[in-house]
Amino acid sequence: MKLYLDAGGRGGVEVTETGLPVGDDSSADRTQFTRVIVPALESVLGERFPVLDQGFVRAVDYMGSDASIVQAARVSYGIGTKSFREDRGLIRYLMRHSHSTPFEMCEVKLHVRVPMDTWRQWVRHRTASVNEYSTRYSVAIDAAQQTAFSGWRIQAPGNRQGSEGRLGEVEGQWLSEEEARIQELSRKIYEERLALGVAREQARKDLPLSTYTEAYWKIDLHNLMRFLLLRMEGGAQLEIRQYATVIGQQIVARWCPIAWEAFLDYQVHGLMLSKADLTITVHLAAGRIEAAIAEAEQQGLVTRTGAGVVPRREARELGEKLVRLGLEVPWA
Amino acid sequence: MKLYLDAGGRGGVEVTETGLPVGDDSSADRTQFTRVIVPALESVLGERFPVLDQGFVRAVDYMGSDASIVQAARVSYGIGTKSFREDRGLIRYLMRHSHSTPFEMCEVKLHVRVPMDTWRQWVRHRTASVNEYSTRYSVAIDAAQQTAFSGWRIQAPGNRQGSEGRLGEVEGQWLSEEEARIQELSRKIYEERLALGVAREQARKDLPLSTYTEAYWKIDLHNLMRFLLLRMEGGAQLEIRQYATVIGQQIVARWCPIAWEAFLDYQVHGLMLSKADLTITVHLAAGRIEAAIAEAEQQGLVTRTGAGVVPRREARELGEKLVRLGLEVPWA
Amino acid sequence: MKLYLDAGGRGGVEVTETGLPVGDDSSADRTQFTRVIVPALESVLGERFPVLDQGFVRAVDYMGSDASIVQAARVSYGIGTKSFREDRGLIRYLMRHSHSTPFEMCEVKLHVRVPMDTWRQWVRHRTASVNEYSTRYSVAIDAAQQTAFSGWRIQAPGNRQGSEGRLGEVEGQWLSEEEARIQELSRKIYEERLALGVAREQARKDLPLSTYTEAYWKIDLHNLMRFLLLRMEGGAQLEIRQYATVIGQQIVARWCPIAWEAFLDYQVHGLMLSKADLTITVHLAAGRIEAAIAEAEQQGLVTRTGAGVVPRREARELGEKLVRLGLEVPWA
Amino acid sequence: MKLYLDAGGRGGVEVTETGLPVGDDSSADRTQFTRVIVPALESVLGERFPVLDQGFVRAVDYMGSDASIVQAARVSYGIGTKSFREDRGLIRYLMRHSHSTPFEMCEVKLHVRVPMDTWRQWVRHRTASVNEYSTRYSVAIDAAQQTAFSGWRIQAPGNRQGSEGRLGEVEGQWLSEEEARIQELSRKIYEERLALGVAREQARKDLPLSTYTEAYWKIDLHNLMRFLLLRMEGGAQLEIRQYATVIGQQIVARWCPIAWEAFLDYQVHGLMLSKADLTITVHLAAGRIEAAIAEAEQQGLVTRTGAGVVPRREARELGEKLVRLGLEVPWA
Repeated sequence: MKLYLDAGGRGGVEVTETGLPVGDDSSADRTQFTRVIVPALESVLGERFPVLDQGFVRAVDYMGSDASIVQAARVSYGIGTKSFREDRGLIRYLMRHSHSTPFEMCEVKLHVRVPMDTWRQWVRHRTASVNEYSTRYSVAIDAAQQTAFSGWRIQAPGNRQGSEGRLGEVEGQWLSEEEARIQELSRKIYEERLALGVAREQARKDLPLSTYTEAYWKIDLHNLMRFLLLRMEGGAQLEIRQYATVIGQQIVARWCPIAWEAFLDYQVHGLMLSKADLTITVHLAAGRIEAAIAEAEQQGLVTRTGAGVVPRREARELGEKLVRLGLEVPWA
Repeated sequence: MKLYLDAGGRGGVEVTETGLPVGDDSSADRTQFTRVIVPALESVLGERFPVLDQGFVRAVDYMGSDASIVQAARVSYGIGTKSFREDRGLIRYLMRHSHSTPFEMCEVKLHVRVPMDTWRQWVRHRTASVNEYSTRYSVAIDAAQQTAFSGWRIQAPGNRQGSEGRLGEVEGQWLSEEEARIQELSRKIYEERLALGVAREQARKDLPLSTYTEAYWKIDLHNLMRFLLLRMEGGAQLEIRQYATVIGQQIVARWCPIAWEAFLDYQVHGLMLSKADLTITVHLAAGRIEAAIAEAEQQGLVTRTGAGVVPRREARELGEKLVRLGLEVPWA
Repeated sequence: MKLYLDAGGRGGVEVTETGLPVGDDSSADRTQFTRVIVPALESVLGERFPVLDQGFVRAVDYMGSDASIVQAARVSYGIGTKSFREDRGLIRYLMRHSHSTPFEMCEVKLHVRVPMDTWRQWVRHRTASVNEYSTRYSVAIDAAQQTAFSGWRIQAPGNRQGSEGRLGEVEGQWLSEEEARIQELSRKIYEERLALGVAREQARKDLPLSTYTEAYWKIDLHNLMRFLLLRMEGGAQLEIRQYATVIGQQIVARWCPIAWEAFLDYQVHGLMLSKADLTITVHLAAGRIEAAIAEAEQQGLVTRTGAGVVPRREARELGEKLVRLGLEVPWA
Repeated sequence: MKLYLDAGGRGGVEVTETGLPVGDDSSADRTQFTRVIVPALESVLGERFPVLDQGFVRAVDYMGSDASIVQAARVSYGIGTKSFREDRGLIRYLMRHSHSTPFEMCEVKLHVRVPMDTWRQWVRHRTASVNEYSTRYSVAIDAAQQTAFSGWRIQAPGNRQGSEGRLGEVEGQWLSEEEARIQELSRKIYEERLALGVAREQARKDLPLSTYTEAYWKIDLHNLMRFLLLRMEGGAQLEIRQYATVIGQQIVARWCPIAWEAFLDYQVHGLMLSKADLTITVHLAAGRIEAAIAEAEQQGLVTRTGAGVVPRREARELGEKLVRLGLEVPWA
């Protein structure tokens, strides 16, 4: 049986039933062999997708496509089929089973403009290549991220790292005006230092974290999806969430649409039940509410008091899952 | 006490008094088996070595020692000798030949307090594990790095990323007082925002880069030496250079003294000649000055003008090497 | 409010309400500051846990404990509580929410003896430090993994990479004897080559993949759990699964028992539902069997034929999850 | 055609004809924005460069070029010059000063066919993405690396991991014929197992290490050069050295010729002197032979005996450097 592996190009390369390209290149028209091209991504290459007030994200270069994932998987797994449906099925199988290496075969390089405060979180993802604008070599970018009157978020009471709701516009206006003043003053001091001859590397030391920086950021698709999973999520800070969302929806969705769909279906919109969650869910699905509560209590998810069943944090999280499962939450 | 390490082979390798694994387990008293301990490092575990005005570095935990490097190398290389001299020779051999994996067998965890501006450079080293103090969860540390009157550095004219000399104390005093004011004002605004209920994750956005942060930073010895090589060097910014120097001299020198000495001898104080450097050096050592200059010109290191031989940057760098080699610089 | 952070030792270090160690070391008894010790792991340090016929795994050194995870998390998240129950809750929270960096603060070094065939899979996990026994420097270990008469596994028909059931003992005996012969012959040829003076690096080239090798393998707890998740799983090859299981049950369970329990509860025994799984599950839990099948068909999980509903691979996988959820599988 | 790169700053940096990002997007014709293309590499994309008897290496896809290195460096270092000479100078400056991140901006994907014995060394380089042909999913490739009559290398006496010279053809013929027999027999046994229904994952266990495997191997230029430095070197095993040399000369030299030249000049053909080497060299260059020997003795490089100065290994290595420096070796 002969199969065709679209080995990184349009021409295709014959593969054996093991999914490996076969050797008879003498007859192959090698001049047909070109890099994978993704027209949908090419069409926005270099386009700046705006984020926040003055930031942006844009794709500068890329390597690979959905077809490269399939190609790599077939080398590894020898699965030699070829229709679109099968390709999609294979990518979804890989995603479902955490076979992550084929997704590493795709690489993208972004050019981003982002406040240093957000960048501090961004670079915690270590599996990317980075070249950031240097404020030792060059004068710092003259832009800081500014907050709209209506953009001041209130500290969440229940979640120490979150925010919830907005301050009123009166207070907001006051805060935004004060923000503009401190940013302006910081910049003025920075430029005074430079004018006096202070080294750039030292002059910058009191610039606000809101100052914009720029960088090239190059990462493979597997690690990019890991970044997106953590940073598109509700618990991520709003600013980086906006960047992650734009990267996902504007760039990854165009670049590798099948992988993107699988990522959304299996990871972003998936539901994870722990062992305890599962036991409790089975009780509830069978209508055994008392057994469910007893299990939750034994697992330390809830405590019973005179006033009723008091859920701890994990029980509240389980509650949200139960709602998605169409079940009633017994400690609501 | 003699112990035997069945180092992946049949013969076994004798090791001594280092707490290394024993071989021939049938006869060995396995209760003797303990972790490697380095008393010189234990004696400063937890001690805060001050850096900058309010920063520090301290070792919190560690794994391995010089003996662990030897042990790992002997598994790989089967070199079964045992005296101190041979251990030292082996470690130096590994360092000289870039056999880096045995150095990865040592791991250290530091607790550091460092200005965010310096931390931005620090975390660019991706091969470490990091847990940084979170200003989303907690109120930002109330400390910013302050510059002494005499501490303001002048922009280097020839090196776009460097500094050279200091400003006078009069200007310095003025700059330091202004620095204190902007830091105080930024903090006041930060605390006002918190008092108004703004979420911590947003309130922090205009804190100055000089604000201190803290982190646990865990890294293996190979990657730590790579960090130190790049950050102890003259081209590194003064602030991070001070941290790197303290880590090297106060912690690594106590922890793995043989590896530290080899690192200094082969890497920090070594001299690298390129192919062109080498050709020019050979000419100079043989007294062929004209041939040396001709080679330098052909390689693009110098240009000849009516006024004489004009060195480009690489020729100036070579000049420094020639001085260390005891040779005269023909374009000085 | 003052809290205590057991900062890697027995003495404890005062922390503020933000969970960060505070500076007043002058009063602290710094000599109390020692490394974390885990007696349950110390008691088996150096002990060889047998795997396969001649392999083993043993812990040689380690750094950190459950307490180190908590300590790191508190620096990051500033959660300053201290009872056992709270520590356990915090570790489980981290595991549940993929906050993986605190788990990186624990490091372990193993000494393993393993067939090269298995080692080929093992080293695909790139986030570890490795020193393997070198057959360039030393004569190859004179041991190959042998299969018992009853140990020959049958190729799984439905799963191209799996095995299912065993061959009969008659065929098994024949295969095992032939295996012994080829292993013996390969070794004889290897030793002949050495006797003739062939370089070790070349003489080894036809040794069988079943030849044992040894290595030091050092990895942090987060990456070790990732390894264990993939390699303890039913889809992993039996041989590496046995190694992973021993590492988990004999070493990790003693070293970081709280993290190990959380790992089992949330990852190993957890249940992941995709978006489609969820929709179908909700229908089934509500008794809407026809809607469930229609959804499965639309998502490409099943096809309807004259003979009934034919599940594809993903539907069969979902079937197993439905059973665990106590629901009936509509395409069984 | 002129393009503008707003390289993270206000001024913008002119770049040329390389397909690099444009700045001032308002006026730029964004449809001009395309990926970097390297015609010299495109012309051999997919071409199999043979290595060993049945192995090969070929480039399948790539991202970036010399121009991408320059682009990334300019974002970081803000060096805004543009002629070819300056680009070359910048790349050489980066190479000389270990500024490695810009080289990470180039990525290449290779398809390789290589004996498992060599592959075992290859995958020790952890900073690449790998998809290897799976012998769990598919029948093992029916090819093993065979040694020519004249290809049997003799164990080096002085270097435990090296080889030196060849065996005679008579012995060689005998060894090659025996090699063919053991390879044939191993394959026959493998196929018998499969015919009996043994699972592929188990049947393969006694295949010889000389069996060929295939893989996609994707890596960035910085890490690729690190691989090449270690594996093109004389101390590397002949087989992997041949692969490394082909990758360097056939692929990297076409892809990023300026970086490749700099790599050869600064790393491959450079000369590293340790602190002790340097002191001894200075003495020798000044004709102070006795002082040089005294220093060597004090540093433990040589010992004096009645019979004269006996060099240890490091002194012999230094001897080779001295020859390259045109100096006489005082302990020859």
